Amino acid sequence: MLENTGRTEIKDLGEVGLIDLLTQHIKLNHLTTMKGVGDDAAVLDYTKGKTLVSTDLLLEGIHFDMMYTPLKHLGYKAVTVNLSDIAAMNATPTQITVSLGLSNRFSVEAVEEFYQGVLMACKKYNIDLIGGDTTSSVNGLVISVTAMGIQDQKKIVYRSGMKDKDLICVSGDLGAAYLGLQILEREKQIFLENSKIQPDLGGNDYLLERILKPEARVDVVSQLEGLKIIPTSMIDISDGLASEVQHLCKESKVGAVIYEEKLPIDHTVISKAMEFNLDPTICAINGGEDYELLFSIPQADYKKIESHPDITVIGYATDASEGVNLVTKGGNSHPLKGIGWDSFKNEN
Amino acid sequence: MLENTGRTEIKDLGEVGLIDLLTQHIKLNHLTTMKGVGDDAAVLDYTKGKTLVSTDLLLEGIHFDMMYTPLKHLGYKAVTVNLSDIAAMNATPTQITVSLGLSNRFSVEAVEEFYQGVLMACKKYNIDLIGGDTTSSVNGLVISVTAMGIQDQKKIVYRSGMKDKDLICVSGDLGAAYLGLQILEREKQIFLENSKIQPDLGGNDYLLERILKPEARVDVVSQLEGLKIIPTSMIDISDGLASEVQHLCKESKVGAVIYEEKLPIDHTVISKAMEFNLDPTICAINGGEDYELLFSIPQADYKKIESHPDITVIGYATDASEGVNLVTKGGNSHPLKGIGWDSFKNEN
Repeated sequence: MLENTGRTEIKDLGEVGLIDLLTQHIKLNHLTTMKGVGDDAAVLDYTKGKTLVSTDLLLEGIHFDMMYTPLKHLGYKAVTVNLSDIAAMNATPTQITVSLGLSNRFSVEAVEEFYQGVLMACKKYNIDLIGGDTTSSVNGLVISVTAMGIQDQKKIVYRSGMKDKDLICVSGDLGAAYLGLQILEREKQIFLENSKIQPDLGGNDYLLERILKPEARVDVVSQLEGLKIIPTSMIDISDGLASEVQHLCKESKVGAVIYEEKLPIDHTVISKAMEFNLDPTICAINGGEDYELLFSIPQADYKKIESHPDITVIGYATDASEGVNLVTKGGNSHPLKGIGWDSFKNEN
Repeated sequence: MLENTGRTEIKDLGEVGLIDLLTQHIKLNHLTTMKGVGDDAAVLDYTKGKTLVSTDLLLEGIHFDMMYTPLKHLGYKAVTVNLSDIAAMNATPTQITVSLGLSNRFSVEAVEEFYQGVLMACKKYNIDLIGGDTTSSVNGLVISVTAMGIQDQKKIVYRSGMKDKDLICVSGDLGAAYLGLQILEREKQIFLENSKIQPDLGGNDYLLERILKPEARVDVVSQLEGLKIIPTSMIDISDGLASEVQHLCKESKVGAVIYEEKLPIDHTVISKAMEFNLDPTICAINGGEDYELLFSIPQADYKKIESHPDITVIGYATDASEGVNLVTKGGNSHPLKGIGWDSFKNEN
């Protein structure tokens, strides 16, 4: 590790030097990893199950704002959001590749900080970092992560298997990441207006952690395995509950009823939403970035999860002709509209 | 396909619309592809061999210049340079993911053109396009490709297996891509100085094709299989022959002697190098981007490739203590120096 006494320019190390520095602490743990970093390609053994592959591109100014995103958190999040995609197939993530495009604004120390976050996530989730590409960029930070995982063919869960009358479940709670983002955006505005005012982030640990350092619900996949439940469909909630329910229903060719009163919302979300004059239900439905799992199970499995502390039944599937609806606390039924998040439509 | 009558803004289609448009023509051919685009992850069957994975990040302004790179060629090249990494493991590439970051400078039609190149390469190399990510970018074009392949464990070739006295071979010819780049750079400068002068690219088809539309030598992998040769080490030549010989020797803990007179150099390279006042040997040794395969074979296999029209023995491995040397046409021996290419060190 370089001593953190100053700023080392990446060009002084060069690509090979930077890669050597970053990869020196990589440990390979999986039997499925035969060869990691250091050749033209990694070599993996997926003869014992089917292979899952998912990839994400994260771009500065689009997916993250360096003004309020610590690099270590960013490295952690870049990994976990990809692992979340593998978990959403009801599978176990095993390997990742991490590619970085770095402008000369970034020092070696900054890249090391990012990598610390990457390796922290790899350690927590027992993931082998098996490769990547490191290059300079003209502008800003470019992150591309590909995650791989393994699962028995009969346990892989697609978006398309939900059946009429299946129960629709969600893990954890919803809306916190969205409110964390609102706090960060508010403090950024205050700082931009008067740089002498330091950000006031105290007392919002949970909300900030949800946006800056989200977890992949690989634990839920394990718990479902333990409960002998194979969901009929599954997706992770990256773009908001409403949008993801729509995805599952479209792919599964069913409708759905979701109950507002069943939505799992943390008390900190409720109080912070009121502070921002926001409806907590809207935060939960359209917030996005919670990275919880949304899945459907047969009614016969209800007893198995009835008293689970971290899984909530929020509705059920219907015939496709009935559409996708939200039943409000007042008992009214409205079409559940997903705004989702579209980086192209959010362009300035 | 949209009619090519004008410019369609990507934001008018949105991410989902764009993905639908781009993926509508994807056909899956491999038995190993169980599920491609359209879920949280692709599902692959690698139970019949080991899995190879390689990933590359290609950034506008660093890896390509939009002034002289047609988008279709760029899409083709983004795929083939990744397939080349799989070929360099002596393996057969089977799947790719392609992620794109697009600034609002790019229209839907432009992205379609890029994708035509991607699909053309997929068709030529029989590759399934199984996923990716599509997002807006603040600046320029970001391309991230992950390639996967399959091979029997005992046929996978690493960089590290070359033995003393093994023969060092190269496929195809060297230096053409570098000269193609010089032509493009020259015409760009002329254009920048006087935009009324149209680029004069005539008569340079081979050199330009080598830089703009390189091929992956998957055919060489098949031919070696047919000849019952398993190379002892292998790498693809992306950063120049000298640099790659150094890589193989370092990983294999051997030295090498390379003969200048044996280097396969096309006659168009020799004549164009003279026009640019360049030494053809330097172009061949340090040029880069040729994407030919550099590999070593046991001497016992010499007869099998002796008269092969597309494989040239350029030297042999020595004891590590002798270093890596080039014997010139005049009979002198010099250390073979690899400049390679380092995007960080080439920063302005």
